[in-house]
Amino acid sequence: MTIPDQTGADTTTEVHAAWLPPEAFRAVGSRRVLVHGEGLLVDTVREEVAGACARYGGAYDSAYGGAYGGEPHAHAGPYDLVLALTTAEPLPGVAGEVRAELRRRPDPAIGEQGFALARRDGVTVVLADDPAGLLYGLFQVVRLGEAAFEADRPVELHRPAMLRRMLDHWDNVDVHPVMGQVERGYAGGSIFWRDGAARGDLARVRAYARLLAACGVNAIAVNNVNVHATEAHLLTDRLGDVAAIADELRPYGIRVHLSVNFASPVVLGALPTADPLDEGVREWWAATTAKVYATIPDFGGYVVKADSEGQPGPFAYGRSHADGANALADALTPYGGVVHWRAFVYDHRQDWRDRSTDRARAAHDHFAPLDGRFGDNVILQVKHGPMDFQVREPVSPVIAAMPATRLAAELQVTQEYTGQQRHVCYLAPMWREVLGFRPWGPDGPAVADVVGGGGGLVGVSNVGDDPYWTGHPLAQANLYAFGRLAWAPPLDPAAILDEWIDLTFAPMTTGKTAPAATGETAPAATGETAPAATGETAPAATGDAEPLRRTLHAMMDDSWRTYERYTAPLGVGFMVRPGHHYGPDVDGYEYTPWGTYHFADRDGVGVDRTRATGTGFTGQYPPPWSEVYESLDHCPDELLLFFHHVPYGHVLHSGSTVVQHIYDTHFAGVEQVERMRLRWAETAGSVPPGLHARVAELLDEQLRCAREWRDQINAYFFRKSGVPDARGRRIP
Amino acid sequence: MTIPDQTGADTTTEVHAAWLPPEAFRAVGSRRVLVHGEGLLVDTVREEVAGACARYGGAYDSAYGGAYGGEPHAHAGPYDLVLALTTAEPLPGVAGEVRAELRRRPDPAIGEQGFALARRDGVTVVLADDPAGLLYGLFQVVRLGEAAFEADRPVELHRPAMLRRMLDHWDNVDVHPVMGQVERGYAGGSIFWRDGAARGDLARVRAYARLLAACGVNAIAVNNVNVHATEAHLLTDRLGDVAAIADELRPYGIRVHLSVNFASPVVLGALPTADPLDEGVREWWAATTAKVYATIPDFGGYVVKADSEGQPGPFAYGRSHADGANALADALTPYGGVVHWRAFVYDHRQDWRDRSTDRARAAHDHFAPLDGRFGDNVILQVKHGPMDFQVREPVSPVIAAMPATRLAAELQVTQEYTGQQRHVCYLAPMWREVLGFRPWGPDGPAVADVVGGGGGLVGVSNVGDDPYWTGHPLAQANLYAFGRLAWAPPLDPAAILDEWIDLTFAPMTTGKTAPAATGETAPAATGETAPAATGETAPAATGDAEPLRRTLHAMMDDSWRTYERYTAPLGVGFMVRPGHHYGPDVDGYEYTPWGTYHFADRDGVGVDRTRATGTGFTGQYPPPWSEVYESLDHCPDELLLFFHHVPYGHVLHSGSTVVQHIYDTHFAGVEQVERMRLRWAETAGSVPPGLHARVAELLDEQLRCAREWRDQINAYFFRKSGVPDARGRRIP
Repeated sequence: MTIPDQTGADTTTEVHAAWLPPEAFRAVGSRRVLVHGEGLLVDTVREEVAGACARYGGAYDSAYGGAYGGEPHAHAGPYDLVLALTTAEPLPGVAGEVRAELRRRPDPAIGEQGFALARRDGVTVVLADDPAGLLYGLFQVVRLGEAAFEADRPVELHRPAMLRRMLDHWDNVDVHPVMGQVERGYAGGSIFWRDGAARGDLARVRAYARLLAACGVNAIAVNNVNVHATEAHLLTDRLGDVAAIADELRPYGIRVHLSVNFASPVVLGALPTADPLDEGVREWWAATTAKVYATIPDFGGYVVKADSEGQPGPFAYGRSHADGANALADALTPYGGVVHWRAFVYDHRQDWRDRSTDRARAAHDHFAPLDGRFGDNVILQVKHGPMDFQVREPVSPVIAAMPATRLAAELQVTQEYTGQQRHVCYLAPMWREVLGFRPWGPDGPAVADVVGGGGGLVGVSNVGDDPYWTGHPLAQANLYAFGRLAWAPPLDPAAILDEWIDLTFAPMTTGKTAPAATGETAPAATGETAPAATGETAPAATGDAEPLRRTLHAMMDDSWRTYERYTAPLGVGFMVRPGHHYGPDVDGYEYTPWGTYHFADRDGVGVDRTRATGTGFTGQYPPPWSEVYESLDHCPDELLLFFHHVPYGHVLHSGSTVVQHIYDTHFAGVEQVERMRLRWAETAGSVPPGLHARVAELLDEQLRCAREWRDQINAYFFRKSGVPDARGRRIP
Repeated sequence: MTIPDQTGADTTTEVHAAWLPPEAFRAVGSRRVLVHGEGLLVDTVREEVAGACARYGGAYDSAYGGAYGGEPHAHAGPYDLVLALTTAEPLPGVAGEVRAELRRRPDPAIGEQGFALARRDGVTVVLADDPAGLLYGLFQVVRLGEAAFEADRPVELHRPAMLRRMLDHWDNVDVHPVMGQVERGYAGGSIFWRDGAARGDLARVRAYARLLAACGVNAIAVNNVNVHATEAHLLTDRLGDVAAIADELRPYGIRVHLSVNFASPVVLGALPTADPLDEGVREWWAATTAKVYATIPDFGGYVVKADSEGQPGPFAYGRSHADGANALADALTPYGGVVHWRAFVYDHRQDWRDRSTDRARAAHDHFAPLDGRFGDNVILQVKHGPMDFQVREPVSPVIAAMPATRLAAELQVTQEYTGQQRHVCYLAPMWREVLGFRPWGPDGPAVADVVGGGGGLVGVSNVGDDPYWTGHPLAQANLYAFGRLAWAPPLDPAAILDEWIDLTFAPMTTGKTAPAATGETAPAATGETAPAATGETAPAATGDAEPLRRTLHAMMDDSWRTYERYTAPLGVGFMVRPGHHYGPDVDGYEYTPWGTYHFADRDGVGVDRTRATGTGFTGQYPPPWSEVYESLDHCPDELLLFFHHVPYGHVLHSGSTVVQHIYDTHFAGVEQVERMRLRWAETAGSVPPGLHARVAELLDEQLRCAREWRDQINAYFFRKSGVPDARGRRIP
């Protein structure tokens, strides 16, 4: 394996361009472009356009040029593309027409961060009310590529479904003795921190910001929610390190957030208490927060994991989580900051013998009674499922239980339980299901609507200092898809993947529909054996990228379900090696205090969470799901063992028995990985050799690990049930 | 828990006296004693006697006084005790009579390290041919206490069953990132090394040597058999650290051995190979060894773990283990040194699906064919069982398979798999069984005879820098018993425990049969709350130590079997948490590459190692055991699952079924721990409070852990077998 370990060497000089290779800007860069408006992010648009035009022979013009122009000047049109704020004056020609059309609408505002896109009379127009919207509009034109300059298009309004699209980094400043530099990080070290200090590689941070803006992310928490001793100081004497990061993120419209330790008043302030109702504590937070904003005026706010897995919290003082969250929120109110307060609170020291305690219930039990008691600038950050980022869980019932609270849904982009960026596991289909789930039934709002109402979407980042950013090059697609789904939850995961392929593999695909070639050649290779990426020899554009596209879809579209097939079956979850969570160990957590059990015995398997005979967890859902999940007849197959303990002979809706389903899916999952691996082998020559080798190596590991899962799961259930495989395959 | 962790603070100022408190010398120290002879170890005897007499009012006299006298002088008798070399002249009186009697025997020699003990006419006499024997004779008198000065006793000859009684320390010099300062150490840090350097606490080393001499140990390997980078250098540029330790051990008759890396010629010598047949390699070992002996003239030799669990070895060069061992042995021959070559060689990357591979076979498969090919100064060091220090294993078949090889048996005093010095587990009964096992049946020699023929006994030390030496104060008894059994394998474990109790709790027991009290009081306490030990307030001697003695016997005599009852049943082994090996995890190693499986399914459990249907391991034994173990009818219950895979309903010789036996023993084991804990509570006030508190705390943990074992094992087998407990007890 060539994946760098946590102590990995500095690889910043050879970093893969991910979905923003220069070629992705070929369509824009070969046009005549006008950028019109004022503001830091408009300047960023200018810089992007100017760079692209310089590279690809287009012509760039700037009105109200800011850093690039200075004086307003007469336009040098005609233009192929106009990017303008709606407040820009004068705005003549097609752009002016589009603006006038917008202004005639009943709701004339494009809205915060949004943009309008249109094409007529040979001019593509992007208009936005604010500079952020203009930046997102530019990246939409980049995504469209040549298509943005082909047929006319009527005015389209693009508005983000969620105003806050955030990534949480579980990056430590100090290398944690067990968890390493990045907790649950599978992509090398941190891009922010190394060995106890700021890494200082601000160019890499800037490049990251650019990638995130291109997929729509606009907020980052730069340190782990488990805030250890050193990390606590980011709030005070190490704030300068955070400010330096903020300076790099700002031009791409990304605000910095900080994970803080609830006990900071004690740990940092030497106060005798961190009681959230103590006046001294409240003053400490107010004064500390004032200093933060004096240093970082656009600081986003605090992220807090309290009373969870050993972290300090308000329970120590007999206070509620609302008391705790509000204390910090009040300190942030004067500056417009928010508190992201995590709802991941449960008893991680439970007695496995006690079948009445159900970890799945914990978040709802703790937080639903507090609905309405959180301040306006508190966002309760709820993991999408009731357990912990398993490959299959129902949606958390908390989402439907707190109408008077701002809720954010938390997704895990880093693949802790989904292959740890050694397995291909494209997560957008899972997220799409989560965001589209309608807790109150088909006529009610979806999860995306609930969290779009003020909370937003939060993803745990999968990025590290790996040259490919994400360890597995194809795991980049998860990061990209997270941003895109946060912007537009109804997007089709396959369409998002298509976007990602078009951008990322633009060096190989731009021949497809490109205008007359500019004659430019690919940059010189840095060496055939380099592990990465930028500057690596790109195969010549063949004019037909379809085989590569088809291969990537064949490998990735269904890869989440493939991973599900060869791992824990039917929603039962876990069955992973304790501690690192990679690879199978069916009973690994079965007799532990962690609350993650499958209760398999010789007769059956699954967790009875019904009201009738189990833990009553189904009752945390509103109808119809409270009834659907309760019913053995109606519970969806894929969640059966999450909600019910059933005999091995129980017949699924699919017609198969539970145990035969286990065997069949585990054999099938491995066969899919085998096919995936063969498909990838065919792409040799059509992607850069370093990337090809990395993916090929990882597919070997994925196959080894998938076989291990298959054999352990099948052996376990065969030994326990005694039921032979109906198809007579070998079970070890 | 107050057990110091691996980084524990320096506790050298308060170290428990273990089995050599000053009071243990009261009987000797209150007598008139003559020490007669020359030599370093005779001087040690003098020092011990002089110190005891100074403390307890006796009179000490020295002939050929060495450091203590100078000129021979007229004896100032009469004496109560004479300790003399048989070469000492003049030797008048009773001592002379005893010597004359010895000289009239057909074999007049007492022999190496041995001593003769007699009492007549009011004089107790100890005679030895060599100084070491005199030292061991002194400690025998100390053990006897007042009994040494009561009735007459005819001449008894005491000769060690094994000339080499050795402890291996698995101490690292550098703190290993996973294994810590001491690999499988449960008693704090190392007494030799700390954080990459020699600890320099030579007084502690000296105290350790004295304790070891008092129980008969005469060799130590001072570093881990897994020889990492830093530790490799002990052989060359860090040899001075080893020499400093040797200087402290020498006065107590203990020789230093060193674990070396087989690849040393490459690692240290910058040679291109470590091929044992390469002339340059052989020259390197010769030159290096010459330097070792120039520095440490009584150096014992090398310990080597080769081709085992990742350590380098001769296989890399296509050579046999005989080739490898002989290369090092040849270098040691000129100086009388030996190589301890470990037979712990197996495939630790085996495929769990492959039931034909059997780790139990590995040592015999590797080494038996090499019998007769090892040099005279090679000792093949064989773990007592074929697996790895489980609570119950058969004796290794290698013991009976290599008549032309010097064999040592290796025991594990450190309680890796037997409670990690948090559980009371007195191991002497297990070792007694091992040493008394007769591989060729009742008329053949015992294991003790085989290894007594030149190999000796090796124990992995359980000592660390903990104030009680061994973490659990009662684990001291294991170290003591190891030495005693190596000296005299037929000793009754209960009698050894009695010796240990009498010595260790002498401050509480000397009232029992003591002569008129000297009026001396116990040393002042260093403080009621001190965790340790020397100087701690001793309760006043009550004149009746029997309750404490009875309690300790009740707690310890059967504690090994108690541990067995609540852990892995019927010889099947393991079922421990992977990695640290503490606490239960029934399937923890079931699907791993380590070769340690139980194969439990819904119908039965156990490993079929028969020739008829299994791995054929039973064929590695000579008759009768090859037949006994092969036969389901004759295989002893306690090893049933080691040799056979049987249905849960299989009826044991005990009359119980396998599954009911599992339930019964696990309930019983916990009940025994509960009783143990109650018994200990009764001793409050009759042992030092710090020691009492430490043991009480550990018993709480033992009970918690025993319950965890009981519940996990019972739940596992109930879930798998579906057989309810015949007595209707709750299985979770």
